[in-house]
Amino acid sequence: MKGIRQLAEHLDISIGTVSRALNGKPDVNEETRRRVLVAAEELGYVANQSGRSLRQGTTNVIGLMIESSKETTENGDNFFLGLTGGLQSVLSRHKLDLIMLPCPSDEDPHEYLKRMVARRVVDAMIISATQRIDKRIDLLSRTKIPFVTLGRSASGSNYPWIDLDFDGVANSAVDRLVAHGHRRIAIAAPSNDINLGFIFLDGYRHALERHGIAFDPSLVIRVKSSEQGGYQAAHEILLLEDRPTAVILIYELMAIGLYRRLTEAGVIPGRDLAVIGFREEPRAKFLQPTLTCFRMSLPDLGVELAETLLATMPAYSHFYPEGARNCIWPLELVPGESDGFHLGNNGQRRQ
Amino acid sequence: MKGIRQLAEHLDISIGTVSRALNGKPDVNEETRRRVLVAAEELGYVANQSGRSLRQGTTNVIGLMIESSKETTENGDNFFLGLTGGLQSVLSRHKLDLIMLPCPSDEDPHEYLKRMVARRVVDAMIISATQRIDKRIDLLSRTKIPFVTLGRSASGSNYPWIDLDFDGVANSAVDRLVAHGHRRIAIAAPSNDINLGFIFLDGYRHALERHGIAFDPSLVIRVKSSEQGGYQAAHEILLLEDRPTAVILIYELMAIGLYRRLTEAGVIPGRDLAVIGFREEPRAKFLQPTLTCFRMSLPDLGVELAETLLATMPAYSHFYPEGARNCIWPLELVPGESDGFHLGNNGQRRQ
Repeated sequence: MKGIRQLAEHLDISIGTVSRALNGKPDVNEETRRRVLVAAEELGYVANQSGRSLRQGTTNVIGLMIESSKETTENGDNFFLGLTGGLQSVLSRHKLDLIMLPCPSDEDPHEYLKRMVARRVVDAMIISATQRIDKRIDLLSRTKIPFVTLGRSASGSNYPWIDLDFDGVANSAVDRLVAHGHRRIAIAAPSNDINLGFIFLDGYRHALERHGIAFDPSLVIRVKSSEQGGYQAAHEILLLEDRPTAVILIYELMAIGLYRRLTEAGVIPGRDLAVIGFREEPRAKFLQPTLTCFRMSLPDLGVELAETLLATMPAYSHFYPEGARNCIWPLELVPGESDGFHLGNNGQRRQ
Repeated sequence: MKGIRQLAEHLDISIGTVSRALNGKPDVNEETRRRVLVAAEELGYVANQSGRSLRQGTTNVIGLMIESSKETTENGDNFFLGLTGGLQSVLSRHKLDLIMLPCPSDEDPHEYLKRMVARRVVDAMIISATQRIDKRIDLLSRTKIPFVTLGRSASGSNYPWIDLDFDGVANSAVDRLVAHGHRRIAIAAPSNDINLGFIFLDGYRHALERHGIAFDPSLVIRVKSSEQGGYQAAHEILLLEDRPTAVILIYELMAIGLYRRLTEAGVIPGRDLAVIGFREEPRAKFLQPTLTCFRMSLPDLGVELAETLLATMPAYSHFYPEGARNCIWPLELVPGESDGFHLGNNGQRRQ
């Protein structure tokens, strides 16, 4: 691998001029720049950005930390890959690259992040799957690494975040089901401390309250956010003495497992149990009857995350004068057949 | 963020002792080590591994370069995420971390890799989706960065690779179809220069030859490796005057689009057209009739990739004395209903 010195010798130009040409400075004439770039290509010159980065204290790389649990990968969850295009479209404006940091399933996310921070691989971080108490937010604040979270947390204060509108989803799902005559509405909520579970449950409780429906803790089914979790949720619903007539799911792939368990028991979604799923997802499109769920644009969310992050970084904030605005990301209801039946006043199916 | 100096002052121990304690050297007594680690945690000490890495010339990070095309992400292709667990289980033995480098769909993979090499983010690379001519292999060889490819190429010589057994898949699919009486067997092959397409086509031609079946170029359908490509393949098969009685697919998600187009035309897979898919995939499990396809373990492949890579790295090769062995990764046939019918001698359906 050739360095800048060999390149300068080969061209018989000063190292300073070669450096300015390679770095696109304006004070180099076009012909010289062209000669330098051609020679750099021919000689296999590779800039040592690591040395440069250490001087500047930057790597020009932005990290997206994701969870890589067995369930996520086996389910073919495409959420994070779906963000990359939008993120990259913004980062490439500033010659920044995106890398993904998959936290192993058997490792504590805080310990993992601490190590990745120590490795100084990235200039800034996007973290996701925020917990109710999330030490990663304190870590990033303390170490002064610019970051944005996908998801809120009770930890930290005044940090930039973007979150999906779990409250809005819970409210519009309950409203829709109540309008169809349902009053015993279950939810499948996450069994861990992920923050979205708290928001979703709050939204659900408030929506019930608005409609004058008493909250029944037995209708909150705690399961894993996975296809298998959906199967488990259906199983538990079928065991309830006073069975709900409707269920709202909080994770996109739950619907698949839920349908499977219901079908095994001869309970037809959209006829015997109203089902509202979460995010519209390629795999869930196969479900019959079609699933009522919520649509959002992953590429647009990627753009918003990247712009929010850059607005917090001193080197780029002037490009984003509106600053890092926290944002609740909307989801739009997509009506399907899975919640299509109406209950009469007697609680019996009407059509 | 506290550095090692502040930590030493706080504990009133020499910087050298603190450093040896943090780095797990044996010549520090247990009590001192414990005190140092507790204080490091309390004070928010973060080791500056970047400085250390520059001295050692290492980052302790391994990169997995993936393609992040719109089709891949929208399809929820879980292939690469499926590798991470196996890769990490090996890398963690050596305190190495895995990062994923998603090459934007609008960027040339060679230019992208050149930039990532210059950024010095990783010690070694795993690259995938190798092309017939793949300049990335020359780049990595020239810059002396340890690497392994997932997929072979006509570029380079004597580099470590692991490849799925596309030849074996083509051969066993043709054998199976011929045993069922088929002789007009189409294949859906990739429309780009990805190397696996060449291997697959060669395997198909040799298998036909073994059975004394003339190769008919009109039965090689060139489409994108995507669900949409599968739809297109079915469309083109339906337009053929002398329609094939069977088709073999080279990409896992093609089957979904292919089924859809066939169903639209009233052509039933497994009754009117025999279909053999590629890799068994969660989404394709929904297909009715069930798809005959091939099974492999992504986690095991991740382990093999990581061990092969480490065997090429001077710092780790002594752990892997068998060296970097190139390897054709087997796939096992999973019989389904999609190729279940037999043709009689007259080329008509028998059952």
